[in-house]
Amino acid sequence: MEEPKGVKTTSAAEHVGQRVRLSGWLHRLRRMGGINFLIVRDGYGLFQAVIDDPAALEPLRDAGTESVIEVTGTVVAEPQAPGGFELHQCQTRMIVPVNETLPFELNKPVLSAGLDVYLDHAPVGLRHPRMRATFRLSGGILAAFRTHLSSEGFTEIQSPKLVGTATEGGANVFTVEYFGRKAYLAQSPQLYKQIMVGVFERVFETGPVFRAEPHDTTRHINQYTSLDAEMGFIEDHRDVMAALTGVVRAIFATLRADYARELELLEADVPSVGTEIPSIRFREGQQIIYDRFGEDCRREDDLAPQHERWLCEWATEEHGSELLFVTHYPASKRPFYTMPATGDLAHTHSFDLLCRGTEIVTGGQRVHRYDQLLAHLQQWGLTEEGFEGYLEAFRYGMPPHGGFGMGAERLLQTILGAGNLRETTLFPRDIKRLAP
Amino acid sequence: MEEPKGVKTTSAAEHVGQRVRLSGWLHRLRRMGGINFLIVRDGYGLFQAVIDDPAALEPLRDAGTESVIEVTGTVVAEPQAPGGFELHQCQTRMIVPVNETLPFELNKPVLSAGLDVYLDHAPVGLRHPRMRATFRLSGGILAAFRTHLSSEGFTEIQSPKLVGTATEGGANVFTVEYFGRKAYLAQSPQLYKQIMVGVFERVFETGPVFRAEPHDTTRHINQYTSLDAEMGFIEDHRDVMAALTGVVRAIFATLRADYARELELLEADVPSVGTEIPSIRFREGQQIIYDRFGEDCRREDDLAPQHERWLCEWATEEHGSELLFVTHYPASKRPFYTMPATGDLAHTHSFDLLCRGTEIVTGGQRVHRYDQLLAHLQQWGLTEEGFEGYLEAFRYGMPPHGGFGMGAERLLQTILGAGNLRETTLFPRDIKRLAP
Repeated sequence: MEEPKGVKTTSAAEHVGQRVRLSGWLHRLRRMGGINFLIVRDGYGLFQAVIDDPAALEPLRDAGTESVIEVTGTVVAEPQAPGGFELHQCQTRMIVPVNETLPFELNKPVLSAGLDVYLDHAPVGLRHPRMRATFRLSGGILAAFRTHLSSEGFTEIQSPKLVGTATEGGANVFTVEYFGRKAYLAQSPQLYKQIMVGVFERVFETGPVFRAEPHDTTRHINQYTSLDAEMGFIEDHRDVMAALTGVVRAIFATLRADYARELELLEADVPSVGTEIPSIRFREGQQIIYDRFGEDCRREDDLAPQHERWLCEWATEEHGSELLFVTHYPASKRPFYTMPATGDLAHTHSFDLLCRGTEIVTGGQRVHRYDQLLAHLQQWGLTEEGFEGYLEAFRYGMPPHGGFGMGAERLLQTILGAGNLRETTLFPRDIKRLAP
Repeated sequence: MEEPKGVKTTSAAEHVGQRVRLSGWLHRLRRMGGINFLIVRDGYGLFQAVIDDPAALEPLRDAGTESVIEVTGTVVAEPQAPGGFELHQCQTRMIVPVNETLPFELNKPVLSAGLDVYLDHAPVGLRHPRMRATFRLSGGILAAFRTHLSSEGFTEIQSPKLVGTATEGGANVFTVEYFGRKAYLAQSPQLYKQIMVGVFERVFETGPVFRAEPHDTTRHINQYTSLDAEMGFIEDHRDVMAALTGVVRAIFATLRADYARELELLEADVPSVGTEIPSIRFREGQQIIYDRFGEDCRREDDLAPQHERWLCEWATEEHGSELLFVTHYPASKRPFYTMPATGDLAHTHSFDLLCRGTEIVTGGQRVHRYDQLLAHLQQWGLTEEGFEGYLEAFRYGMPPHGGFGMGAERLLQTILGAGNLRETTLFPRDIKRLAP
């Protein structure tokens, strides 16, 4: 007799009528009138084994929830069961017995404890189907970002996370002991990705960045995954916005196409991107807020979270769009490398992309002329010290260029409508949390 | 008249007979008998513009090497020219003039200065076609690693780089000031990827890891890109070796198929992987060294670099393979989480993959039973402190599992036969170098 084929929940339904072997964690055991229903979770989904012969359950007699087990059985199509199949005529095998009380229930559709409990017990909390679905989506975002940019001629780079100077401002930077001197953890790959435009024209990076945020809020976190891109030979920031629109559309399309099951489980719907994302200038946005929502913020140089929510409300009503570009932020609130707007030095060729009430991407055109960059450093109260390598790229010719950066966890939070950034961060780090 | 289409060197040859617009850096200007040959480098390759009308060169009169320029011309097929085409009837435009002496020549096929000079001036040194080809390959390695593992059911994760305890041993770990306490930079995603096997069965991660190596050698570096994978429900380490063989084969196939131009420029040939990679046990390897090369290292518990070179020599001669697995390393030289070999507690279900004389991957089966793991911690002189989260995953059931980690820069170094790891590391960090 043929050895039963080892399969996973993703492919078992293709083997109707055959004997297969499935392994996973005991998710739940239900008894109904002498029949036992084993619900088992593997790395991809759930399956149900129907066992009416008590002897077949004997190897699992000590099996508590989360025991690692194997079930061999005949695949029967069953549209009502998870994955569309059941196993009948089963044999079971114990791989690793578990008899522990869980800190929460893993086999209920909703989370039975507060977020902090799941975070404290993340190694087991992440096994909850909702958590699992969340972090499966996060893999999808990364893959879609890279695949799309590669197809657009971008080259992937890996920049240093240990840097000699706190280049994006001294606040919020972590200090590292580096062989008797100080190093810092990179707050973004900004300067490196710009340098690499001089090499490859178009580059992207996906990797961790570090912000020493001393705030304990639902929006702050100390390590996040930054999705960065930078491109050369642009006209101005609008070319970058067009490229970003393509990226966002590709990510959303991938999630819809390949992660429908996860989105359904999380009751999430991915925002839709029209042919073009509506765009307004920063000052226009303030005027809209004044006209429509009655708050006068027209003399301020930044948008508060409530202002971003109002502008998104406006975009939905006026343009039917859940996404909105705000451009031309005041120079005073943007870093030294931001390109001033044509004929308006107080504003910049910069943008934020807002989605469902919150900023998800920041970007813009950069200064590309060496002498202008030197002047900017001075205006921003910085010296050339620590920028020598960066400046060298410009001394030897940099094309007009620009780019953007987005936090993967923030993007996922926005898609899922999660209240806390920690819900979409794998093992989050914050002022209180360095473990697990 | 139609506006000339903006193209890149990668696609210009498809437009023979048409007017196109190409932009890039002035790589070289040659004059031959009244005819000017402009060699221009864009982010992807070189092209040649043939200019016989002096007026057409007028906009570039101040153009030194590396000036950012634009050339509009008619595409003419020319098999001898870079990219297989030339531009004729050209107009030129200056975008950003450069008139600086370069620290080395970018337009000669060989590197005209030593490695240190290129590293000191990396922002411009990386523009050299050889450097560019090198780091294009590094993007290809990452993409192939991820694509292959995704197709094998692995989920991508992003683990924390700031950790509360120096879990892989206190030596060689960087310390970070973390809101009044100490944190450490992760030396590997080992514990997190194992935890995530309990969630997704199969996971991978590509990201930076940090080693506070105080050694200034050609083999040591303080940040590198670790390609990590971990998989559950294995029989033993041989399942991991089979998965790794698939990964290595996929990476090499991708480089051969999609990066032929870069490999040719670097005169590199990618190792070939047979249907199976030969495998010997650690002690067998020592016996081979004794029998064949006359050195008796049979009582040692590790292989020295010379031993690895000899074993690769042996594998090439005996098996015609540039790759060789060495398995069953002594337990004394492997971390606490390594699975002891069946019936031989002094050795382990571990392996190294050697290639062309050097170790490129380390991996093995891990201990998966909670009580055995506790015993191992004790035997290795460790306490449960700092391992609480890791241990929790095992308390709630972990399947037999294993995995591997490889340094992307080391792999590329091996493929290219580069003498120094810094040649294949973008902006390397070492005891002397924190910039650029």
